[in-house]
Amino acid sequence: MSRDLDREARAALSAVVEPGAFTVAKRVQSSGPVAVWEAVTGEDAKLDPKGVLARRARGVDGAAILARASELGIGYVCPGDAEWPAALDSMPATLDAGADAVPPPFGLWVRGNGSLAACGSEAVAVVGARAASAYGVRVGGDLSADLATAGWAVVSGAAYGIDAAAHRGALAMGGTTLAVLACGVDMAYPRSHGELLARIAQAGLVISEVAPGMEPMRSRFIARNRIIAALTAGTVVVEAALRSGALSTAHWAAKLGREVMMVPGPVTSDLSAGCHEWIRDKGGVLVTDAREVIDAAGRLGVDAAPMTTGAQRPLDSYHPDVRHVYERLPAFGAVTVDALSRQSGFLAGFLETSLRTLEAGGLVTHLQEGWARVPGAV
Amino acid sequence: MSRDLDREARAALSAVVEPGAFTVAKRVQSSGPVAVWEAVTGEDAKLDPKGVLARRARGVDGAAILARASELGIGYVCPGDAEWPAALDSMPATLDAGADAVPPPFGLWVRGNGSLAACGSEAVAVVGARAASAYGVRVGGDLSADLATAGWAVVSGAAYGIDAAAHRGALAMGGTTLAVLACGVDMAYPRSHGELLARIAQAGLVISEVAPGMEPMRSRFIARNRIIAALTAGTVVVEAALRSGALSTAHWAAKLGREVMMVPGPVTSDLSAGCHEWIRDKGGVLVTDAREVIDAAGRLGVDAAPMTTGAQRPLDSYHPDVRHVYERLPAFGAVTVDALSRQSGFLAGFLETSLRTLEAGGLVTHLQEGWARVPGAV
Repeated sequence: MSRDLDREARAALSAVVEPGAFTVAKRVQSSGPVAVWEAVTGEDAKLDPKGVLARRARGVDGAAILARASELGIGYVCPGDAEWPAALDSMPATLDAGADAVPPPFGLWVRGNGSLAACGSEAVAVVGARAASAYGVRVGGDLSADLATAGWAVVSGAAYGIDAAAHRGALAMGGTTLAVLACGVDMAYPRSHGELLARIAQAGLVISEVAPGMEPMRSRFIARNRIIAALTAGTVVVEAALRSGALSTAHWAAKLGREVMMVPGPVTSDLSAGCHEWIRDKGGVLVTDAREVIDAAGRLGVDAAPMTTGAQRPLDSYHPDVRHVYERLPAFGAVTVDALSRQSGFLAGFLETSLRTLEAGGLVTHLQEGWARVPGAV
Repeated sequence: MSRDLDREARAALSAVVEPGAFTVAKRVQSSGPVAVWEAVTGEDAKLDPKGVLARRARGVDGAAILARASELGIGYVCPGDAEWPAALDSMPATLDAGADAVPPPFGLWVRGNGSLAACGSEAVAVVGARAASAYGVRVGGDLSADLATAGWAVVSGAAYGIDAAAHRGALAMGGTTLAVLACGVDMAYPRSHGELLARIAQAGLVISEVAPGMEPMRSRFIARNRIIAALTAGTVVVEAALRSGALSTAHWAAKLGREVMMVPGPVTSDLSAGCHEWIRDKGGVLVTDAREVIDAAGRLGVDAAPMTTGAQRPLDSYHPDVRHVYERLPAFGAVTVDALSRQSGFLAGFLETSLRTLEAGGLVTHLQEGWARVPGAV
């Protein structure tokens, strides 16, 4: 019940608030989406001094948006849902990081047969210039094809140039590729990519944080790039001129502590200048093929706890979101469900179900002070 | 007098001992070249267990070699000579560094109108693959042309491919370029580069540590590359496959603490793979143009003491080799001429002349314990 109100509020906010807006995201983190939606419609002067949001919010009905989307085969995944990618859970903490904040989305609209579970530790973003060279298109395509062959998901923005090459490379190998758009997932942008998006949706997902029907706008592309960076273990920029928008994805990845990887090219090519600058001056890792990408991105991953190599851990046999609840438990000591819920953004009901599952498997135990990991059980 | 015997012994050694031979270099450092030449001709079993050197040394007369060379317009520059590049003074200390030793040459044979004074803090090595691509040849040439325009000397090995492009680029701008060969400076290797070498000699120098008439041999190329690395503030590798010989120059530069710079290229080109690997894994600095090379190589320089930026220091008005004597003095305390001679390899007479010059300028003072810097005078 409370989950439905939560979801409706998030859906409504996603139709009204500009993606990535810091103040609203901070308010949602502290007060929850229902309270924030009420503040928006109630013309909260602190949140919305010029009344812009309030005007946009008139007549907006979250439940109606959800229902219409559902008819179109579009789903809405929210924090607390089983499918919510744990990779995004590192975003709320950044709200205290000043200029380095990476505001979390209210939720993610999705269209397609794939799953957000593909995101995270074995997904990598492959992005780059729209006005790509033949070299960049070839390298982006080959890289993605090899990543797909290695079982990694390729995430990109379905733009012209490198993005399209990346999606196509993965599709060609029957791999999983996901597109994150700056517009509603019911729309094709660029228009000529309608068919590409349909192919992506077949085995993957078309994703957006903005509600169906919302237009692409310049500012929304930069905001969209932070979702691409957040959903992945690392970002590879195949080609980018010195001030290319594609580099914003690298900036977001760096803020999130994800691996930033750059493909070099001819020094005579302006389209490689941005990549070269990142390698020289900004800590970008030089990568030339999929193996090097996997080495670099595999190291960092999206989870705080490093995955052990070698034999399968007992934890590996659990559903990804249950694993993520385990990872959220402190290494030592216990935590209550309430505290865990506040820290993680997961809803209590979901946490309890997951914890009981882990308890049944002997990985966690319920103490007086709360839930704790069983030492050495993993 | 003693200088002539020194020089003759060095000339003789340079006709008999393989360039870069560690044991002989160490012996010369401790005992001086005259004693070592005597040991070689006297069949010292410790130095020359199989008598190879003794056999080669039969009939070799250092004075005759010098005389013949002089007739050919070839000079021999030895430690202690005014023209001896101070950049090479960091080599003797490496003889204690085990596998990282970079043995100093006995001397340098030179042919041409230029001067070894061009070497050092504003000289950079530009090297790379023999089987270069059109991209590498173009970039190597442009880079060198721009370095020459900026007043930097370009040092290379006159090989096919990148080396030749580097020399030509500098020559085209009327700049200074020096070639270090693996054979005697009276020979052209490769044969078709005779004219190129003649042009280099017009405003620059053709240099070798092996005596005139000595043939190029595979092992001598690797040894030659350490001279290229030692004469320069940094080494730029324009193109190199994974196991290219050109990378040995980078290894030597790293051992000498010089800047190692790599030019990236298409990841589809095997010829850039060695450069990419150095950037990823070995600390090579990615450079795309002459400005970035100068920034990187200018920082480190070849002198231990950092040059102050801004107003000219009093020391700046002295001849480079006198400055180098100053730099050799300890920051605190005094040192005798004998000790300084042993540490630096400079001959006592040269040191005394330089020290008196510095004393006259108030930069050093003669104490009971030896010579010392005057604090704050520089």
